[in-house]
Amino acid sequence: MSTEKQRPQRLRRRLFDILERDLPGDHIADAVHYFLIATVLLSVTGAVLATVPSLALREKWWFHWGEFTALVAFTVEYGARLWVAPEHPLRRQLPPLVARAHYAVTVPALIDLAAILPWLISLTTELDVHALLVLRLVRFLKLARYSSGFNALYLAVRRERYALLSCFIILCAGVLIAATAMYLTERDVQPDKFGSIPEAMWWAITTLTTVGYGDVVPVTTSGRVIGALTMVSGLVMLALPIAIIASSFSEVIAKHNFVVTFSMISRLPPFSDLDAPVLGDILPLLNSRSFDRGHQVVRRGESTAHLFVVLQGRLEMEGETGFRALGPGDVFGLLPGHTKASPVPVRAVVKSKILAIEENELHMLALRHPAVIGRLSAAARDRDADDTG
Amino acid sequence: MSTEKQRPQRLRRRLFDILERDLPGDHIADAVHYFLIATVLLSVTGAVLATVPSLALREKWWFHWGEFTALVAFTVEYGARLWVAPEHPLRRQLPPLVARAHYAVTVPALIDLAAILPWLISLTTELDVHALLVLRLVRFLKLARYSSGFNALYLAVRRERYALLSCFIILCAGVLIAATAMYLTERDVQPDKFGSIPEAMWWAITTLTTVGYGDVVPVTTSGRVIGALTMVSGLVMLALPIAIIASSFSEVIAKHNFVVTFSMISRLPPFSDLDAPVLGDILPLLNSRSFDRGHQVVRRGESTAHLFVVLQGRLEMEGETGFRALGPGDVFGLLPGHTKASPVPVRAVVKSKILAIEENELHMLALRHPAVIGRLSAAARDRDADDTG
Amino acid sequence: MSTEKQRPQRLRRRLFDILERDLPGDHIADAVHYFLIATVLLSVTGAVLATVPSLALREKWWFHWGEFTALVAFTVEYGARLWVAPEHPLRRQLPPLVARAHYAVTVPALIDLAAILPWLISLTTELDVHALLVLRLVRFLKLARYSSGFNALYLAVRRERYALLSCFIILCAGVLIAATAMYLTERDVQPDKFGSIPEAMWWAITTLTTVGYGDVVPVTTSGRVIGALTMVSGLVMLALPIAIIASSFSEVIAKHNFVVTFSMISRLPPFSDLDAPVLGDILPLLNSRSFDRGHQVVRRGESTAHLFVVLQGRLEMEGETGFRALGPGDVFGLLPGHTKASPVPVRAVVKSKILAIEENELHMLALRHPAVIGRLSAAARDRDADDTG
Amino acid sequence: MSTEKQRPQRLRRRLFDILERDLPGDHIADAVHYFLIATVLLSVTGAVLATVPSLALREKWWFHWGEFTALVAFTVEYGARLWVAPEHPLRRQLPPLVARAHYAVTVPALIDLAAILPWLISLTTELDVHALLVLRLVRFLKLARYSSGFNALYLAVRRERYALLSCFIILCAGVLIAATAMYLTERDVQPDKFGSIPEAMWWAITTLTTVGYGDVVPVTTSGRVIGALTMVSGLVMLALPIAIIASSFSEVIAKHNFVVTFSMISRLPPFSDLDAPVLGDILPLLNSRSFDRGHQVVRRGESTAHLFVVLQGRLEMEGETGFRALGPGDVFGLLPGHTKASPVPVRAVVKSKILAIEENELHMLALRHPAVIGRLSAAARDRDADDTG
Repeated sequence: MSTEKQRPQRLRRRLFDILERDLPGDHIADAVHYFLIATVLLSVTGAVLATVPSLALREKWWFHWGEFTALVAFTVEYGARLWVAPEHPLRRQLPPLVARAHYAVTVPALIDLAAILPWLISLTTELDVHALLVLRLVRFLKLARYSSGFNALYLAVRRERYALLSCFIILCAGVLIAATAMYLTERDVQPDKFGSIPEAMWWAITTLTTVGYGDVVPVTTSGRVIGALTMVSGLVMLALPIAIIASSFSEVIAKHNFVVTFSMISRLPPFSDLDAPVLGDILPLLNSRSFDRGHQVVRRGESTAHLFVVLQGRLEMEGETGFRALGPGDVFGLLPGHTKASPVPVRAVVKSKILAIEENELHMLALRHPAVIGRLSAAARDRDADDTG
Repeated sequence: MSTEKQRPQRLRRRLFDILERDLPGDHIADAVHYFLIATVLLSVTGAVLATVPSLALREKWWFHWGEFTALVAFTVEYGARLWVAPEHPLRRQLPPLVARAHYAVTVPALIDLAAILPWLISLTTELDVHALLVLRLVRFLKLARYSSGFNALYLAVRRERYALLSCFIILCAGVLIAATAMYLTERDVQPDKFGSIPEAMWWAITTLTTVGYGDVVPVTTSGRVIGALTMVSGLVMLALPIAIIASSFSEVIAKHNFVVTFSMISRLPPFSDLDAPVLGDILPLLNSRSFDRGHQVVRRGESTAHLFVVLQGRLEMEGETGFRALGPGDVFGLLPGHTKASPVPVRAVVKSKILAIEENELHMLALRHPAVIGRLSAAARDRDADDTG
Repeated sequence: MSTEKQRPQRLRRRLFDILERDLPGDHIADAVHYFLIATVLLSVTGAVLATVPSLALREKWWFHWGEFTALVAFTVEYGARLWVAPEHPLRRQLPPLVARAHYAVTVPALIDLAAILPWLISLTTELDVHALLVLRLVRFLKLARYSSGFNALYLAVRRERYALLSCFIILCAGVLIAATAMYLTERDVQPDKFGSIPEAMWWAITTLTTVGYGDVVPVTTSGRVIGALTMVSGLVMLALPIAIIASSFSEVIAKHNFVVTFSMISRLPPFSDLDAPVLGDILPLLNSRSFDRGHQVVRRGESTAHLFVVLQGRLEMEGETGFRALGPGDVFGLLPGHTKASPVPVRAVVKSKILAIEENELHMLALRHPAVIGRLSAAARDRDADDTG
Repeated sequence: MSTEKQRPQRLRRRLFDILERDLPGDHIADAVHYFLIATVLLSVTGAVLATVPSLALREKWWFHWGEFTALVAFTVEYGARLWVAPEHPLRRQLPPLVARAHYAVTVPALIDLAAILPWLISLTTELDVHALLVLRLVRFLKLARYSSGFNALYLAVRRERYALLSCFIILCAGVLIAATAMYLTERDVQPDKFGSIPEAMWWAITTLTTVGYGDVVPVTTSGRVIGALTMVSGLVMLALPIAIIASSFSEVIAKHNFVVTFSMISRLPPFSDLDAPVLGDILPLLNSRSFDRGHQVVRRGESTAHLFVVLQGRLEMEGETGFRALGPGDVFGLLPGHTKASPVPVRAVVKSKILAIEENELHMLALRHPAVIGRLSAAARDRDADDTG
């Protein structure tokens, strides 16, 4: 079973692989990855320290050289990502320029642009406006692209966005009520601190979030009683978002599922060369599972109700004649059209990612995209032929 | 299967639908909904800013116009809700005036009244007492009516109200013990701050809730040791309510159940035209479940132990002759009187809400309200006849 | 099936029932219960306010009368609890004086004693030492006796006491490390605040618990870096106990089990008249479950692996000839010696507490205490005879 | 079945058992254990108090004697642990000196060394540099060796280290954004407090972690709005690590598994005398489970899919002819080569630790280390022979 790939535009393909860092064990991609992270960190640190007057960084020649290097690196990265955009499986059918325009309006691309724009402007117009400063630090957000943990956090927060919005409304109601009560109580005693509801709201938000600066505190007995009630309510204000995110997060983590990305799928024989619309239709149905070294994918005697496609890593299947190795692109488990999968145990040899398609999803897939199912069956049959032959 | 409805009082019915915003895709209801939310936010903001002397909002003509508009909007809303109250399924059998009186004493109606009362009083009596200020901000609570996340939060807190009460007692005990200890330790050194136990309690509550203003701090060594112990206890004080709400909330969320409301049910053929007492008896037994696009309601080969009634959305049932669409009011799954449901897979095509009645609840229902079961069976038989015919 | 009880000492028995408040719907017990709670709250409030010089409560005649009334009430309560101590099922075999001595050294009895002791001393010795003040507020802890939520909280904390101890050690290590680092950094700049490690520890504990008074803050750049690291570590310090208690609490709650008390058991026919050692041997094996109104105890068609004894409330069993009511002391489910329980559905009519004994526990019980099993079987047979006859 | 052990070097073996404290009920090991804990606590307390000038501890003769005693105790402990290092099962095949070198570079050994090194240096060089102070307090970390709860905490934190890293990046981004916004807003009003971004970062970290010293607070209206947003974001910053650790911790606890240590295994007949490489290969596959007194290991009628090896404690197996006691080293449950285990119930008589090897792990073990499986089978057969004979 050999992987068939388009030969042209090899360099662009190679650059895409380096920037996406999808191939495990690609040392050049790793080097580029860590170089970019280091450049982001150094350049953000520089921008922060440049505001300290005593350091006078802006008068140092090496500071400007460092800034220039980072700018060049980010500009090259932005240009490179723009150039390789047509390599992305979802945009493979589009004309290159349209593909690049599509990429340019994605959030990561806009962050990348925002990271270089203020420098480009200050270079060309010879002015360094402070309003651009915030935009300049945006490049810190580039780090989000390189961290795999953000996904789970983002999913956990997004899953409960309505509950969190309710929390925020409750917090606002709490601030309003506490501020009004304190305004009515303390405005005659401390007119400079509780002279209006907005001023009292500063105290209320400080207290409800348990920050408690202490710059504004009630001094009357009734004010302190209101303050005490506000603090106790603050504990519940604290408890609600924590409870919501915690319960959401534990469910997200419990699934141990990771959304499959286009670049993972587009490398696998059964899925490569699919049209973008078909891929876009299939992808939301797919989830991958991670298995640590030594973990059982299929247990002894268990007849699984999933079709598995290996995405990354290496597994061993315990056949009657010994162990058989499984690598990326290999298919095992329930074959479409068969009622039962043969109950052979499979175990991960190294940390592996596997695409698990449930029986019901398979039926759905068979009805909508029979070609994909045909390829999956063919891939599995090839395997069996290898085994028996 | 045609839905039979009363024809008279169409306008009142339409207004009820708009105010309750139950029909998906009703753009007029959406507009009214967002207009009311915006009016609430603007009017609360205005009331808050009116207390800032420097802005002198009360001297601006447009401020009074805005206030007046909001007042009119809220009064109209209150009157309209009062007028359509007899449309509510639970009050349909009551005489209109009794139905309105019933509605007028519910919590949302009282909040709506409290939102307009202070303005009405200040308009009629030409006086704007500050004591009414708190009442005026009550209108912020009107937002709770429009947020769907409150339900889960409220259920989570209510479910553990005894545990939370215990937490509060523990917190009180902690405040008492810490304040007494600090009073005994520091009252000679700082008589102005720790001169009595109530004064020391201000420090204790500030510390136990980790707010820590810093306006009252121990200065002696033994006072600081007591302070350190209080802070560490504060961590546990913090942990208890968070733990309670978190575990409660995750269970509430885990069920993915939403309590069925009267207006949902009263639209569905099997339940419409039921007497209010019968509805009131059935409703607490019913829970609805939400299914996202593409989720399986009944899995392939699974013989479900539930009778399902579609509340909202659209589903597809995979029959032998192809897919069949299911919409609001359609019944599928376990039929009362049959031992087993036919194991056909059902999947949500768009986000749907489904009423799932467990086998045991069905038996209970059959014994108490055979008419309802008769209708459910008839609805399901109509379906099957459609299918085979 | 009639309940056989000892007739003598009816008054002592009645008083025991009132003080323990075990019989549902006992209005005298409820009145006594709420009177005692109110007396505790009033007397603690009085003791707190008595320390405020401006109120001069000690010079008011009614304050002394209130104090005296509370003292009398608590003394009478203490005496009464001491007198009825032999009624407790665990102490029923002991001679009355020994039973009372046993009770007098339990924690609740000692709290009750501590609540009256300082007053008794100040009455007899005409001196009101401040050192007794803390002891006097101990009576607040009497409330714990009346709150049912404490049990779950206590179990949740106790279950993870080793993990919480580890947390405390980690917190101590954090305080030590942060204080030492800050001492080395800031002792020359702020010798009055960071002049020794114990002084720096005050800052460290204030920061790590996120209380942050602000009376001691670092001013140098390196001190602020250390402070920032300490704050971030503080978040984890906060997270650990919350995580531990939350996970423990959700498991405690998930079981929905409540430990069976002696007074519950000793009222039920199958268990009454058992010797204290036998009861003490059986009790740790027993757990009760709560069922809300309408909840299924045994589902239709389910053959339960438990023997159930109704403790409180009322249930209905759906037999072939109609519903049959079950009340306290009734036995149903798996009979010892039978392989399978007859699969009849049982449902709670009101909120009920049921003792559920697992099949394995039944075997264990049968081997160790055949008499108890004999009684359970007899009780169940009586039921069945009632049913078929 | 008699345990065969090497007779030589009995003293070293005994000392190893005392220091590792693995044998339950070893009173000498307990005494040594608590003596070392007390010495650590006293010596750390001494080092902390020595920095208080007013106490002048360094001029007290008994302080130096105490210091000397602790130094001697730790040095003896370090030497003893070094001497007995070859007794560790993993190092048993190595030459003694190599085994000791291996031990000397482990983390606990380095902590032990760091605990005595500063004293040794100050003794020999007659100088007490302050830079060594932090190192000296390192001995507090020796306590981690004695606490069993650290393992669960460490595993919980380590399991989610990527998610926690993402949290940290989010926190850094929050600090950056808040500090920049506040720098732009307040730098003209309070140039001494918000004069540069690093200075504003001090305020931002103080606020986001809800510490809130109050030494730096915004005074302008726009600054306070930014402050309020920062505080609300701070709640989410707080919620994320708590949620992550809580969900991770509850999963770690839910397993109730404890990693098996070498010293546990090396005492058991089926595993003793194995070569270090074989042990090192097997150990990661093994988990032990704790069972409290009275808990069921195998339930009645359940045919377990595990092979069990008793590690600690005592159990009773309910055979046909009565109960049979099981102790450390005994094997029961699924025998390798048999398809089904005989379904006899087993229950823990005292708190016990049991090694549970899953059926799949057994197959894996059988393929890789047939010798181990042979011993397990032999041990189980011995048992059965004892029973039937």
